Amino acid sequence: MKALGKHIILELWGCDGDTLDSQEVVERALREATEKCGATLLQIITHKFSPQGVSGVAVIAESHISIHTWPELGYAALDIFTCGDADPYQGIPVFKKYFKASKANIVEIKRGVNFE
Amino acid sequence: MKALGKHIILELWGCDGDTLDSQEVVERALREATEKCGATLLQIITHKFSPQGVSGVAVIAESHISIHTWPELGYAALDIFTCGDADPYQGIPVFKKYFKASKANIVEIKRGVNFE
Repeated sequence: MKALGKHIILELWGCDGDTLDSQEVVERALREATEKCGATLLQIITHKFSPQGVSGVAVIAESHISIHTWPELGYAALDIFTCGDADPYQGIPVFKKYFKASKANIVEIKRGVNFE
Repeated sequence: MKALGKHIILELWGCDGDTLDSQEVVERALREATEKCGATLLQIITHKFSPQGVSGVAVIAESHISIHTWPELGYAALDIFTCGDADPYQGIPVFKKYFKASKANIVEIKRGVNFE
C-alpha cells in the first residue's frame, strides 16, 4: 500500500548537554541533516529557551525536520518527515554525531496511506 | 511512567481541496489551534507549493504544530507536539473545522519517557 511520506519519530538520550543547548549547533545539524536526506531546505526557525533548551524546525520541500532539546536531561525529541525521494534515515547519524547521543529510539510512521 | 510531552500524529482525509490549498487558512488554523491547545506561539512559517499544497509550522513554547497538505487528495498530514500543561487534543477540532475533514486518524506518542 502506497504511502505519501515517511515520518520518523526519533528519541535521543545520553546527549551532550552543552551541545543540546546551543542554538548554533541545532541550526547547523538541521541544515546538514536536510542535505544528507536529499531534501531541499525552504525555511529554518530556531528558538533558545531560558534557562535552557532549544527548539528548531526546518521546513523542507519534502515536509519538515524538527528538534526540541532538554539539555538538563541529555534528551532531544526529533522528527524527520519526508515525502518523495528524500530518505529520512540519512538524517539520523547527523544528529547522533552533533549531540553525541548514546541511545536512540526510532519509530517510523507511514503517512498518507489511503485504504480505499 | 512520566513523559515530557504528548505528540499527536493526525491524518485528515476527505478535506476541502480549496481550503487545503490556502496559505492564509493554514496560518489561521495554526494560530487558532495553538490558542485552543493553551500553547504560546513563538514563530510561524507557511509555504505555498506550486501547483498545489501548503506546509505550515507553528513553533510554540511547548514544541510545535505542523501541517502539510495535498489538496488534490483531500489529505492533510499534521502533528501536534506539546509539553507542559498544553493539551494537543484541543487543536484537532480546529483543523477538522477549517478543512472540513470527513475522516481522521489519530495516534498519540508519548515523548521523552525515560525508562531508567
